[in-house]
Amino acid sequence: MQNFQFANPTQIIFGKGQIEQLTAKIPVGSKVFILYGGGSAQKTGLLGTVKDTLKGYQVGEFGGIEPNPTYETLMKAVEIIRKENYDFLLAVGGGSVIDGTKFIAAAVPYLQGDPWEIVRDWLDVKSALPFGVVLTLPATGSEMNDGAVITRKEIQAKLPFMSKAVFPRFSILDPIYTYTLPTKQISNGVVDSFIHVMEQYLTYPAEGKVQDRFSEGLLLTLIEEGPKALQEKENYDVRANLMWVASLALNGLIGSGVPQDWATHMIGHEITVLYGLDHAQTLAIVLPSLLEVMKEEKQAKLLQYGERVWNLPKDMSVEEKATAAIERTRNFFETMGVKTRLADYGLGQDVIEPIIANLEAHGMVELGEKGLVTPAIVRSILSKSL
Amino acid sequence: MQNFQFANPTQIIFGKGQIEQLTAKIPVGSKVFILYGGGSAQKTGLLGTVKDTLKGYQVGEFGGIEPNPTYETLMKAVEIIRKENYDFLLAVGGGSVIDGTKFIAAAVPYLQGDPWEIVRDWLDVKSALPFGVVLTLPATGSEMNDGAVITRKEIQAKLPFMSKAVFPRFSILDPIYTYTLPTKQISNGVVDSFIHVMEQYLTYPAEGKVQDRFSEGLLLTLIEEGPKALQEKENYDVRANLMWVASLALNGLIGSGVPQDWATHMIGHEITVLYGLDHAQTLAIVLPSLLEVMKEEKQAKLLQYGERVWNLPKDMSVEEKATAAIERTRNFFETMGVKTRLADYGLGQDVIEPIIANLEAHGMVELGEKGLVTPAIVRSILSKSL
Repeated sequence: MQNFQFANPTQIIFGKGQIEQLTAKIPVGSKVFILYGGGSAQKTGLLGTVKDTLKGYQVGEFGGIEPNPTYETLMKAVEIIRKENYDFLLAVGGGSVIDGTKFIAAAVPYLQGDPWEIVRDWLDVKSALPFGVVLTLPATGSEMNDGAVITRKEIQAKLPFMSKAVFPRFSILDPIYTYTLPTKQISNGVVDSFIHVMEQYLTYPAEGKVQDRFSEGLLLTLIEEGPKALQEKENYDVRANLMWVASLALNGLIGSGVPQDWATHMIGHEITVLYGLDHAQTLAIVLPSLLEVMKEEKQAKLLQYGERVWNLPKDMSVEEKATAAIERTRNFFETMGVKTRLADYGLGQDVIEPIIANLEAHGMVELGEKGLVTPAIVRSILSKSL
Repeated sequence: MQNFQFANPTQIIFGKGQIEQLTAKIPVGSKVFILYGGGSAQKTGLLGTVKDTLKGYQVGEFGGIEPNPTYETLMKAVEIIRKENYDFLLAVGGGSVIDGTKFIAAAVPYLQGDPWEIVRDWLDVKSALPFGVVLTLPATGSEMNDGAVITRKEIQAKLPFMSKAVFPRFSILDPIYTYTLPTKQISNGVVDSFIHVMEQYLTYPAEGKVQDRFSEGLLLTLIEEGPKALQEKENYDVRANLMWVASLALNGLIGSGVPQDWATHMIGHEITVLYGLDHAQTLAIVLPSLLEVMKEEKQAKLLQYGERVWNLPKDMSVEEKATAAIERTRNFFETMGVKTRLADYGLGQDVIEPIIANLEAHGMVELGEKGLVTPAIVRSILSKSL
């Protein structure tokens, strides 16, 4: 096992009706600024409930944080907060709203330069406004970690940043809020969670036995509950399990002490920024082909994954088993309604070089757990994804 | 899934040589009071290393915290700390030293009465001295939770208390510190961890799918690595896995959102306080018999446990499978070198009523996940444990 440090101070408040805990968690006298997305929080009535609950606080709000939240939009919120001195943020939404709120929380007190530097230079900012989360969409795990991905449209960049200062103080996870989600968002969320686990699991053996078992447990739960979530929109326990899986898939725990990959994510980010595909769609396109291309390097873990997660017969040959494990993965994404080929999204051969050029522009030329995913390898991966 | 709140702010610093992080984690200028146990920390040189590392801090120390730490001993440390104004505690040891340090941390600022009230009345104390941990013995999980068990000799009481104020600020977990442990402590630690998981897992189905998978992952790892740890004293990865399992077995995660039992622990505490057996020995005596007596109530989870953890054939009858699962459990404890019968420790029929009387005196008359473990049931359990 590798050496590691792990800490996750976010308080999870999980279950039916937990919104009533909200005021107990925000310091009395705070000036609260609510952030939300494209309007679904309004439409479902959740935003109204939140505002009613916050009677007694001074409250402001900012809507319109888009999927793949942009620097351009977020800086508008930063200006308002600075001018009106809000001192507690509340994200009401999914990963994009939470990621955006993290950037805003770090940007408000960052007066020494352009807050984009936080992302561009991977600054480990030491101070940020405190914030809480009311989660509506289980997928990214942002509600229980200190990372965010921010897009800057004018330079076609979608880049991550991390800082302990941007752990949410609390996150309220009520599975009932997911009942009204469009099917596509459930599909995307399951695939996103699945691939978060795979990035931390499907590398090479490192004697992280608990980490492996936990990862496998998350994958098995997604495989069991994911398809049910598409059929049964109001099955509380199914939604509850998916919601908790999504948080645990990317809260730092399963990745502690083991190698991590993340090449799929980095390639996927470029596809989104260039061609506008959903985050989960890009991951579903890249991962199966990446596993195919890296089959030798990842062989030991592919076999373990095939046996423990897909229950493949022990007597299959190594080659058969690795191939079957990858096939099952691709089929699972397709079963969840997320297509796994570039062609499914109207993209062809001609997108490959621009994606690689973007990766190179962002310095991402040695990706993966061993830095073996070079531009040439990305070319093979994308060719297999056509 | 049940509603829950989960937060665990302890920072884990895991791996070889991590003691060098110590000074980065204790605020500059702190007056540090080191607490340790019966002398093994001195003998192995760890105490010396810690003190060398803390050059530059004002340091005091207090040794002799016993297994099942007593109020009587701990109050001596409280007096010194109050008199000499130490403001940061450092526990160097295993569960007993850490539990003792938690009590001390809460007792020092508790000036409104006798600090025993914290334990007696389950007070959720709001303030405590900050403290860190250097762990030497993986077993109780105390290094990553906010609970402690304190014994008061004069009234034959061994009672738990919990408070968010006594989460360790950090815990340094270096598997190499476990190389010098006596075999008995490794055996006890593995059994203790195993039963911590079982108390949160082997109840009734509650649609906590991830919690179940995580619990099963911890149990499988203990079964795989436990026996190796007895043979290979300096196998780093084996020790690393056991150390991380022990922390995860009782850090609040696997018990969130699911029913919990803890009857085995409550009965076990009385056996320790009356007859001086090691904590893990008492658990190994009680659990298999408890599962036997509660077989009907726990049937669904016993079958799941048998299949997923012990890999019992699907075609066994329900009765056979439940019985086999319990038998495997008992055999595992025996394989680990922890005997599972009262007679193995020279105890007979005559201990049963005193144990029950003690439970009744402590108000523990409806134990277990459904409150079904009454004194009459405890009598059956202990009769089966003879």
